[in-house]
Amino acid sequence: MPLVNESDVLKMISERARTEDTRVLLGPGDDLAHVAVGGESLLAGVDQVIDGLHVRAARVSWDRIGIKAVHRAVSDIAAMAGKPLATLASVVLPPTSSKSDVDALCSGLNNSATRVGAPLVGGDIAIHRDASHPLTVSVTVLGTPVEPGPVLRSGGQAGDLLVVTGVLGGSLDSDGDGPHLDFSPRVQEALWLRAQYGEQLHAMIDISDGLGRDTGRLAQSSGVVAAIESAMIPCRGGASVEQAMSDGEDYELLMAISPACELIECIPVGGGCPLHVIGRLEQGDGESQPLVRLIEPNGTTTDVTDSGWDHGS
Amino acid sequence: MPLVNESDVLKMISERARTEDTRVLLGPGDDLAHVAVGGESLLAGVDQVIDGLHVRAARVSWDRIGIKAVHRAVSDIAAMAGKPLATLASVVLPPTSSKSDVDALCSGLNNSATRVGAPLVGGDIAIHRDASHPLTVSVTVLGTPVEPGPVLRSGGQAGDLLVVTGVLGGSLDSDGDGPHLDFSPRVQEALWLRAQYGEQLHAMIDISDGLGRDTGRLAQSSGVVAAIESAMIPCRGGASVEQAMSDGEDYELLMAISPACELIECIPVGGGCPLHVIGRLEQGDGESQPLVRLIEPNGTTTDVTDSGWDHGS
Repeated sequence: MPLVNESDVLKMISERARTEDTRVLLGPGDDLAHVAVGGESLLAGVDQVIDGLHVRAARVSWDRIGIKAVHRAVSDIAAMAGKPLATLASVVLPPTSSKSDVDALCSGLNNSATRVGAPLVGGDIAIHRDASHPLTVSVTVLGTPVEPGPVLRSGGQAGDLLVVTGVLGGSLDSDGDGPHLDFSPRVQEALWLRAQYGEQLHAMIDISDGLGRDTGRLAQSSGVVAAIESAMIPCRGGASVEQAMSDGEDYELLMAISPACELIECIPVGGGCPLHVIGRLEQGDGESQPLVRLIEPNGTTTDVTDSGWDHGS
Repeated sequence: MPLVNESDVLKMISERARTEDTRVLLGPGDDLAHVAVGGESLLAGVDQVIDGLHVRAARVSWDRIGIKAVHRAVSDIAAMAGKPLATLASVVLPPTSSKSDVDALCSGLNNSATRVGAPLVGGDIAIHRDASHPLTVSVTVLGTPVEPGPVLRSGGQAGDLLVVTGVLGGSLDSDGDGPHLDFSPRVQEALWLRAQYGEQLHAMIDISDGLGRDTGRLAQSSGVVAAIESAMIPCRGGASVEQAMSDGEDYELLMAISPACELIECIPVGGGCPLHVIGRLEQGDGESQPLVRLIEPNGTTTDVTDSGWDHGS
């Protein structure tokens, strides 16, 4: 009896991702779905945080788990340059959960959702039967697109600049702590970018699984290949290029912008958010070229298409 | 360290169910939330199906688990007389899941969602680390209200007739099989009822946790008490009144309708769906009266407010 693996699951989903319902403007395969609601439209997606896969519940305060679960979902709104609308949470608790831990989790979910402008409007909480069963928090996020519409993964063009917000790598400490628990989704930054660059902001994705893997997703959706200059990657203090390529859980934005744009160095939102050009999209030459290649200062290249963290999801 | 229980969790959620965001037309506490999307509006909710709590994954074909997960969520759209729009699913699989089981689960989710008019537009699948971790399927459902608006739990009035669709009780066989896996959410029936009775259809809820408990929820939200006539409850063949009161997982509709309505006996939708008057809502007399009382043919009454199945949720 063959067991399931991640690629099977992705294949099963993509094979079924077609619907003839004209209300579905964009189905599975991007950061979020896009659905018509009467004369308006809605962005919607769901993301999970699971003890043992995305957090270590025994080592961190549960309010931070709630915050991470909301921010992780809302980061997908940022990736499409949408405006947050609301969130819903479904939670399964181990029966050994303490009242104070669950109270902290609810606070984290509720307060972070309010703070990012996507108030928690519904949910479902169940209690597992077995103490070994892991805490599972699933957050659905709803948002609304802004003019001229959501930024998809698929709009990248050969010649586009590849640009990232913030710094990458080293998001997860060896003790399970680290920036992956404390990041803020780049919602306001994405809205600023869309307002500033309009349709010249061709494609965008949030970096959840590592720069290599997520660049591959953007390139593949756009039907092009990507070249990243190793020396241009903004690494978090202490993180190597390899970590930036593969650690994941950064939740920064990766975008493809027309080379005609005059890029600024820092998005003037909040405390300011640096923007770095890290490479380009190119026309692929067929089979021989990797989807994403990393170019070292000495000119050697490496295929980094599969550099990234496998969440088991 | 006090452990959490269901009533703690409900208290924690209700205490936080307030938001000042004017886009939130109705927050947690009803079957679904109601949110403004520009000039339109949206119904949204989330429900879970967990191995060991709601299904026994080792004993049933996984397509039926997918179908149940979708139908359970969409039943909340029926409860508000809404029109289904779309669904999203988040799934956590045990690492021992076979490809064929997961394929069946995806088919069940996708096909049932399409069939009820709420195509699956997004999702997230993760794989647990430990073979003992239970299959968890969470489905978010989106819908749109119809005129004159969603039917809430809170609109019931003293004097209203309490009416149920279909038959109740015996939804779960001793081997884990039974009608709880094969029900169809009463979406078309609810739309027919709203079109037929308009604003005289005062309040509605779907019966997921047992007639006693769900009647209590409707009565409490409406600020009244309920009297149910034991002899008038439509029991499924072989089921007792006690089972109808407490088994749960029926997914029939319970509604409060103005006594001025001329009720028909069968909703002319699909194969026809029986409607039964089972009691009335009444003005409570304060503290002494139970929220829901069951009246036997000999006149004796029982407090059945807490008759129902505790899902641990």
